[in-house]
Amino acid sequence: MPDLKAFLSPNAVAVIGASDNADILRGRIMKVMMGHDFKGEIYPISRSSDEVFGLKAYPTISDVPGHVDLAILIIPAEFVPDTLRECGRKGVKAAQIITSGFAEEIGQDGERSQALVREIAEEYDMAVCGPNSEGFANTQAALCPTFSPAVDENDVPLMPDYRKNGYISAIAQSGGVGFSFFDRGRPKELPFNYILTTGNEAALEELDFVDHLLNTGETDIFMLFMEDVKSPEKLAGVGEKALRAGKPIIVTKVGRSDAGQRAAASHTAALAGAYSGYRAMFERYGIIEGDDIEEMVDIASGFSHWGHMLPAGKRIGITTGSGGAGGLMADTAALAGLEVPILDPKARAVIDTHLPAYGTSQNPVDGTAQAVRQVGYARLNRMVMDADNVDAVIGICSARHNSTFIRERDDLTELKKNADKPVVLCSYTLPREGSVEIVNRCGLPLFTNMRNCARALVEMADYRALRERFLKRPNISTAAAPDDATASALAAAGQTLCEYEAKPLLAKYGIPEAGERLATTADEAAEIAEAIGGKVALKVQSPDILHKTEAGAVALNLLGGAEARKAFEYLTANARAYSPGADIRGVLVQPMADKGQEVILGINRDPAFGPLLMVGMGGVYVEVMKDVAFAPVPLDEDDAHALLGKLKGRPLLDGVRGEPAADVEALVSLMVNLGRFAADFADHIQEIDLNPVLVHPKGAGVTVVDALIVKT
Amino acid sequence: MPDLKAFLSPNAVAVIGASDNADILRGRIMKVMMGHDFKGEIYPISRSSDEVFGLKAYPTISDVPGHVDLAILIIPAEFVPDTLRECGRKGVKAAQIITSGFAEEIGQDGERSQALVREIAEEYDMAVCGPNSEGFANTQAALCPTFSPAVDENDVPLMPDYRKNGYISAIAQSGGVGFSFFDRGRPKELPFNYILTTGNEAALEELDFVDHLLNTGETDIFMLFMEDVKSPEKLAGVGEKALRAGKPIIVTKVGRSDAGQRAAASHTAALAGAYSGYRAMFERYGIIEGDDIEEMVDIASGFSHWGHMLPAGKRIGITTGSGGAGGLMADTAALAGLEVPILDPKARAVIDTHLPAYGTSQNPVDGTAQAVRQVGYARLNRMVMDADNVDAVIGICSARHNSTFIRERDDLTELKKNADKPVVLCSYTLPREGSVEIVNRCGLPLFTNMRNCARALVEMADYRALRERFLKRPNISTAAAPDDATASALAAAGQTLCEYEAKPLLAKYGIPEAGERLATTADEAAEIAEAIGGKVALKVQSPDILHKTEAGAVALNLLGGAEARKAFEYLTANARAYSPGADIRGVLVQPMADKGQEVILGINRDPAFGPLLMVGMGGVYVEVMKDVAFAPVPLDEDDAHALLGKLKGRPLLDGVRGEPAADVEALVSLMVNLGRFAADFADHIQEIDLNPVLVHPKGAGVTVVDALIVKT
Repeated sequence: MPDLKAFLSPNAVAVIGASDNADILRGRIMKVMMGHDFKGEIYPISRSSDEVFGLKAYPTISDVPGHVDLAILIIPAEFVPDTLRECGRKGVKAAQIITSGFAEEIGQDGERSQALVREIAEEYDMAVCGPNSEGFANTQAALCPTFSPAVDENDVPLMPDYRKNGYISAIAQSGGVGFSFFDRGRPKELPFNYILTTGNEAALEELDFVDHLLNTGETDIFMLFMEDVKSPEKLAGVGEKALRAGKPIIVTKVGRSDAGQRAAASHTAALAGAYSGYRAMFERYGIIEGDDIEEMVDIASGFSHWGHMLPAGKRIGITTGSGGAGGLMADTAALAGLEVPILDPKARAVIDTHLPAYGTSQNPVDGTAQAVRQVGYARLNRMVMDADNVDAVIGICSARHNSTFIRERDDLTELKKNADKPVVLCSYTLPREGSVEIVNRCGLPLFTNMRNCARALVEMADYRALRERFLKRPNISTAAAPDDATASALAAAGQTLCEYEAKPLLAKYGIPEAGERLATTADEAAEIAEAIGGKVALKVQSPDILHKTEAGAVALNLLGGAEARKAFEYLTANARAYSPGADIRGVLVQPMADKGQEVILGINRDPAFGPLLMVGMGGVYVEVMKDVAFAPVPLDEDDAHALLGKLKGRPLLDGVRGEPAADVEALVSLMVNLGRFAADFADHIQEIDLNPVLVHPKGAGVTVVDALIVKT
Repeated sequence: MPDLKAFLSPNAVAVIGASDNADILRGRIMKVMMGHDFKGEIYPISRSSDEVFGLKAYPTISDVPGHVDLAILIIPAEFVPDTLRECGRKGVKAAQIITSGFAEEIGQDGERSQALVREIAEEYDMAVCGPNSEGFANTQAALCPTFSPAVDENDVPLMPDYRKNGYISAIAQSGGVGFSFFDRGRPKELPFNYILTTGNEAALEELDFVDHLLNTGETDIFMLFMEDVKSPEKLAGVGEKALRAGKPIIVTKVGRSDAGQRAAASHTAALAGAYSGYRAMFERYGIIEGDDIEEMVDIASGFSHWGHMLPAGKRIGITTGSGGAGGLMADTAALAGLEVPILDPKARAVIDTHLPAYGTSQNPVDGTAQAVRQVGYARLNRMVMDADNVDAVIGICSARHNSTFIRERDDLTELKKNADKPVVLCSYTLPREGSVEIVNRCGLPLFTNMRNCARALVEMADYRALRERFLKRPNISTAAAPDDATASALAAAGQTLCEYEAKPLLAKYGIPEAGERLATTADEAAEIAEAIGGKVALKVQSPDILHKTEAGAVALNLLGGAEARKAFEYLTANARAYSPGADIRGVLVQPMADKGQEVILGINRDPAFGPLLMVGMGGVYVEVMKDVAFAPVPLDEDDAHALLGKLKGRPLLDGVRGEPAADVEALVSLMVNLGRFAADFADHIQEIDLNPVLVHPKGAGVTVVDALIVKT
């Protein structure tokens, strides 16, 4: 990996293809760059002019007298490879290719030139971003090699000078979306240090920039817009590094809408959409998925001001001078998953001494406009913060005028300084008269959308909780070596392992067998049934017959040897009729399981992220509600509990309608063990289905009623 | 009901309590009013000054020489009643009471004075709004008797002069929220004609204003913020009138969550109704529930421009010059419930001739920035509109600069003029340089939030579909008269009607009995069981024992007279043991029902809206998923189908896991019949429970397995 410092913070930049004509992109990029006070050198490279925007221009990069760190290429695609090579020879360590017409173009030529770009980048160990990029901005260096209109004005500073922490980097393949994060964040005065747009990612990818900025520590919050992720295998490493460092990543990835598009089938592969892998990885590493640009910017704003002191829980106090707006906020908060508890009596007693007769201290604390003014806005929020049963405070306000904030500037600054819980402000009017700056200078975010405000607090609390859990966990990736015997058995088996083959392998990993044995003759079936005693099930075992019920190859609730013998005969006959020539290995004789809550458990190999464990409440829940959740493997017990918690049908395990509570611990164990098995043999396993698993009452464990392994 | 014209469009306004000091509310309101070019008379009433803001002031309203239409009262609460009476005597036909300190204050005095205000209003047939209101604005008359900062600036017109239709009225109890609708809509240049804030609603309520504005036809879209609805019985009438007129109501009501309910109660001294009733009423009349202020404003914006041509369905075409933004919009649209189909081949063929090699016509149509410019933005959107398989078009754009819109002004105007489907624009950057005005002048809404844009189109399509259905339906309210025999039987019955009493009454309304008969002796039970043949269930009938299973008062799957006789004995013994002294009427002997999909059906009397029908998928679905839906009664078959469609578990009725499809028509009939029963005896019924109802396979009908009626 080349050093990205030359790219992000160059001392000298050459713009290859620079023009004086600001009506074309080659000129616009010069105009934008010249509009900012970049302290380094800018060398225009032009075949037709000696001077561009008042700067001496050179015919080629080789003609530039001094050292060049970064070359911006905005020339026709056909000239890109040779020019990039020339840069390499000149010792240029970084290049931003704006030019489009590469792999995004239909046909093969574009892809070939893109591969060539990658080769040249590697040959010269050059940090190459693009092609088909909109350029980037390093706001602190006032370096803006981009034609994005988002940075072409000078009336508002690129970075508010008063912000010294909580830096945000926006990184996107799409220039339009990448710079729109900045465009949306600017009126909120958010401290963006970098806006990076990676285009087709012939060489550098979004995650490479995240990784670098985590290493340098420059960035506190990342906002990503992902389209196609070239190297998904980088996600786990970067995600873990960011989580450990406490630097949240807020992402939206194209393809979210596929997540809901699951086939109405009850096996794992069909239930896993293309997006399940991404969602599972995001959830594992606390990567926050945003629903739209504005919301993502608002979540970033919350972290930017309170990253050092995230809410310890989801109980919020609300202060307001407008009862209506307070009620609206309370509703919005509750629907977002926050709690709005009645404040503890001690805090209420203090607040009550300051409120008029028609105010209320319960929560929302409605001070009424006049009382809020008398008590002081900062003081009222402080009193609510002091309630033992809140984790954060939302101060509802109207920021249309600045008078409150000017009057209380010092008090608000003190409020932030002495805070032991986060306080955020949320205006029900649009801010005017510099309210944003005044509030931000006091160290507080000013939200303008209640829903986003609530979502931000939810994400901040969830991130803290998930991170604390993650930091405490043992490193589950470094488990014992895979079991050798299992490895050889798996290697020796065919493509599809029926239950009778799968169960013994899984058993080595603590996944319980159910007392079943394979019968190859009717007499054997009778003998096994007698030995088992009680009711049994018989199931034909053939790698060629996966839909056993449909084939009439399953019989349930048989009692005694005679019934088993008879069943053996007709089941195998059915199977042969259903699939002539099928490889029938025998019939499994299995005790009928005791009652239990039906669960589906499986493994599906995601093309990007390897094996994912899936769990769902079984039966109609899976088919009708698509109530399933995915996680990467391995997973630990906390992960397994958290995954179960994502199921809408989770309360079924606690017992409803008089059913006893199920043995959740046994299910969790089973999930952990299955995850370990899948992780150990990740390269060999395409799919595992344990369907159904019956979770018996507490203490009585689980029964894996059927099992299937499909190899890669 | 007094005429609201004097209130909304007065020729002469007196401000009672007016002051010269703009630092207090009594002065601010004068300053705000004087800041606008109201053509009528303004009479300040002041006890201490002869002149206020340059206008001659009078000591009392009686001293004003001319006629006064509207009095604004901003004086201490204690003087309000007498002053209001004085207004009445003077012939003032309308009053806006700004003063607070009425029922919202803890204690009884406030409520008493509020009742007094109501009486005086009635005595003089005066239109009285408030108290505790923030005033209102009639933007077309430039009349702003309010101290809201939202209207105190003159740099932007209150109403864009180019808007001649699609008028929006914002009506709220809360002044803060009411004017925040306007504050948010103003930068979007939405045509608000009225902003009305009703405060404590001693006399006039929000719905009175809606009703009046529906009668005058001045308003096309209503935005409401409701806290406590004083006369919920007005909702049905106003809702129906608005729906028939095609004037959508967009509402957010406090109480969407428990926390919100508490806020409403504490703020307004009135209890918010249970929310399911509101939701049921909103759904019946196509009243759109918004989730936050910004979203509501955006939904209103869509209707404001396209109210005359709403989308016929939910299939949208997307055009974009930024592939990334197009992908984001497509995801957002799909998650909101829109479809983004691949455009039909004919439309694609036309589009393809205009796109460069790296563009795509499938949908989103990614023209690339350069091609969009060459083809023309308006033309590209028109080509997508021409696709047979889209119902609306979203044009993604960047409105940060106005150049595209200026260049294509005429083409965009033509696009609107010749449109046969709605087209909306959505900018991924914040609009600048007057883009909003240019686009709006062309007749198109400019969204700045993708999620809101998608939601607006969903609501527009849903509203059209619901309204078309509503207009076609027979008027189900005017059913036949209630059945007399049933009425007397119901009157004669006790408070609680057990199954054996309830079933015959319900049967008169076509709700099927299940072949059950009451046994009062063990011998009778045996006899009935024999007569029924097959398996039977026995259930103790006692109005004192509602939890029969818990009491051990139910036995299932009994076969023959002997078992029934025995069961009669132990069930009655159990019942007596469980509830000594219970009034035991006998034991119902009922055939065991055939298999069927379990459904719960019921009626619950909502304190605000009377009987609501509830339906849910039975068993664990109700308990775990809370998967139930409510509708007001009566309801017709379409309503019943629509209500079932709201259940997440609805697919269960289509048959899953090899089960046959259920007899949905029979269930729908049952719902309609139960609704008719509940409507006919609305005043007498507190609750009806048909639980469970088994819906058998198609053609085999339903079995009502248990039934209970509780009278009011």
